[in-house]
Amino acid sequence: MKNFFKVADIEAVCALRTQFPAVAAEAVPLTSVDGRILAETVAADLDIPGFARSTMDGYAMQAATTFGASESNPGYVTVVGSVAMGEQPALRIGPGEAVRIATGGMLPPGADAVVMIEHTEILDEATIEVYKSVAPGQHVVARGEDIAVGDNLLVRGQRVRPQEAGLLAAMGCETVLVYRQPRIGIISTGDEVVPVSVVPGPGQIRNVNSTTLAAMVRAAGGRPRDYGIINDNADRLKTACARALAENDMLLVSGGSSVGMRDFTIEAFEAQPASAIMVHGVSISPGKPTILARSGDKPMWGIPGHVTSAMVVFRVLVEPFIFHLGGWNDGSRQRLTIPARLARNLASAQGRVDFVRVRLVDREDALYAEPLLGKSGLINTMVKADGLVRIAADAEGLDKGDLVAVELF
Amino acid sequence: MKNFFKVADIEAVCALRTQFPAVAAEAVPLTSVDGRILAETVAADLDIPGFARSTMDGYAMQAATTFGASESNPGYVTVVGSVAMGEQPALRIGPGEAVRIATGGMLPPGADAVVMIEHTEILDEATIEVYKSVAPGQHVVARGEDIAVGDNLLVRGQRVRPQEAGLLAAMGCETVLVYRQPRIGIISTGDEVVPVSVVPGPGQIRNVNSTTLAAMVRAAGGRPRDYGIINDNADRLKTACARALAENDMLLVSGGSSVGMRDFTIEAFEAQPASAIMVHGVSISPGKPTILARSGDKPMWGIPGHVTSAMVVFRVLVEPFIFHLGGWNDGSRQRLTIPARLARNLASAQGRVDFVRVRLVDREDALYAEPLLGKSGLINTMVKADGLVRIAADAEGLDKGDLVAVELF
Repeated sequence: MKNFFKVADIEAVCALRTQFPAVAAEAVPLTSVDGRILAETVAADLDIPGFARSTMDGYAMQAATTFGASESNPGYVTVVGSVAMGEQPALRIGPGEAVRIATGGMLPPGADAVVMIEHTEILDEATIEVYKSVAPGQHVVARGEDIAVGDNLLVRGQRVRPQEAGLLAAMGCETVLVYRQPRIGIISTGDEVVPVSVVPGPGQIRNVNSTTLAAMVRAAGGRPRDYGIINDNADRLKTACARALAENDMLLVSGGSSVGMRDFTIEAFEAQPASAIMVHGVSISPGKPTILARSGDKPMWGIPGHVTSAMVVFRVLVEPFIFHLGGWNDGSRQRLTIPARLARNLASAQGRVDFVRVRLVDREDALYAEPLLGKSGLINTMVKADGLVRIAADAEGLDKGDLVAVELF
Repeated sequence: MKNFFKVADIEAVCALRTQFPAVAAEAVPLTSVDGRILAETVAADLDIPGFARSTMDGYAMQAATTFGASESNPGYVTVVGSVAMGEQPALRIGPGEAVRIATGGMLPPGADAVVMIEHTEILDEATIEVYKSVAPGQHVVARGEDIAVGDNLLVRGQRVRPQEAGLLAAMGCETVLVYRQPRIGIISTGDEVVPVSVVPGPGQIRNVNSTTLAAMVRAAGGRPRDYGIINDNADRLKTACARALAENDMLLVSGGSSVGMRDFTIEAFEAQPASAIMVHGVSISPGKPTILARSGDKPMWGIPGHVTSAMVVFRVLVEPFIFHLGGWNDGSRQRLTIPARLARNLASAQGRVDFVRVRLVDREDALYAEPLLGKSGLINTMVKADGLVRIAADAEGLDKGDLVAVELF
């Protein structure tokens, strides 16, 4: 045992991400901005709407014209024209006058409110009855009421959802500056690991990790690049790491990170330029034998070979780094959890955070989190799982019926 | 008012989706299967693991060899060799014998358990002390224990997450049959709507809906195609709908669906081949003036022009149709909600389901849902919102402090 673990806790490891810079920005067209992280703060350079706008189909008039109008005592109003959509109305509205207006139409000068069509009746070509009074501004969005010139509704580091993409459209941003997607190199190690295309012989298993991790990288907003399987050979691993580092922003090496006879990951990391081992061992289960190292500005991870452990480590430790490298200032939104009742007791060792795979089951009285127990590394428990429950380091376990927070995955 | 609303409720509208067939399947490489919907049930054609496999670094032996061993009374075991990773061990283990084995190594014949390296000490080249007894099967995954030949762990209609992609890798599926992504044609209507590239003049607004809806389509697993803005002209809209229908699996027309003076959407839908209006008006707010029609096997939607209403209608009604067309048998997982306390009273009209935009605020005592009130159609309320709260049709409102279920978006 040449390396003893210097075990760190989750928060300490996650905090190290701020030692790495975010990737560079790139301009993308509006049509592919959704899901990306803004690399610029976008201030409104126009009022939205740019004019007082009706929010209803009806008649634009002076609110004062309607005062006192009711079902039993309708007001009579003269219709002097109609507003064409998308055009500036030429008419000026005086007291007792109105123009027909559709939802989205521009209020003519003089008008300050809209009466809904449902509250009117046509008497003749030029006259309507109004059954309801309106207040000034009613059914109208004032100029700049939605967004005013100078508003910083979209800030650097924010993730673009459909509505933010819509707002960028409203501001006329045909191209948008976003962080490019962090490139993540993935290497799978182990003499027992064979490519997906190969039928495993005795003692062999297919490379599950590269596919799983690549999918997780994509879901986290990164761009995975697969460097295949490196059998446990120190020199080949060094060379592969060097190449993957040169071509990516971060490196993920799975397998070979436990204190075992073939532990070359540390050696390979130490051989990289400007390298330092930052963490060796994290107080979590599964995932304890995790390595975090750096080569200059780039993080290098050694994560467990068991795919189930690798998934937990990715979710808990690696993903926050991808968010950070990708410029996201609020990856925590991603972390919102579903509360559920634990379906059975769970034991746990103190001094480490335990992650238990659970399936969500909707029973009559509540949503339950049903632990999927099984030996370390069983893929089927991941496939059956809806999420993870964490058991705090200072807890000896959780009791059946306890309210737990399920992190979906 | 030539059309009166035939108002339907949410469930009735959503149920109509089963009248439409799912799209066809396509084969994709394993590397791009994540996020897609399986169009085949994948049965395991091999055991995983294909051999009894160690889950720890240590020594493989007969469990019986360790019986009675403890810290104070260690057992002495003869080490007869070691297991090379990825190879079939040639040695047979007898009583009192062991081989060195790493995590993932294949157990040699005769061995039925693994003693962790931490529970042993090396005495000399050929002898170890064992400090802990193990049971048969301990620290071993038996052949087929994870996945046995014939297991249907992955079924048609299931969405592929990273772990399912990993399982497909384990089964050697280099290409996978998935539903192709439903193609959704998007048309924006309105004389007041100008392209994003144009500076809006008086009475004009930029086309926010096409960008927002395209992003929502992508997030729902569909492929949007933008047909731009059609000004409110019946013939041009008919032609544009015909083209978009021919090239897509579903059609989304935003704007022009309220009972107003420029309502050509119904007309355009009725002009399509084998068409029928299925719904005109849904008892929701916002979003009441929604139209669902069909042209043969393809749904056509007329959704509100206000982007905020359009987003609610998309989320509540349109998205379930995209999931269904895309072959997803369990879009409901997507619907898991975050419980929060309502931060203020909300009034609501009976007889319709109200959707209120809320921001989630983490206060000391609980997570709160803070309603973002504002006039219909304000983009900024969508941008500030984390999700929606629904107020049931039979409720007159909700009280401050009520526990509500927030649907994230």
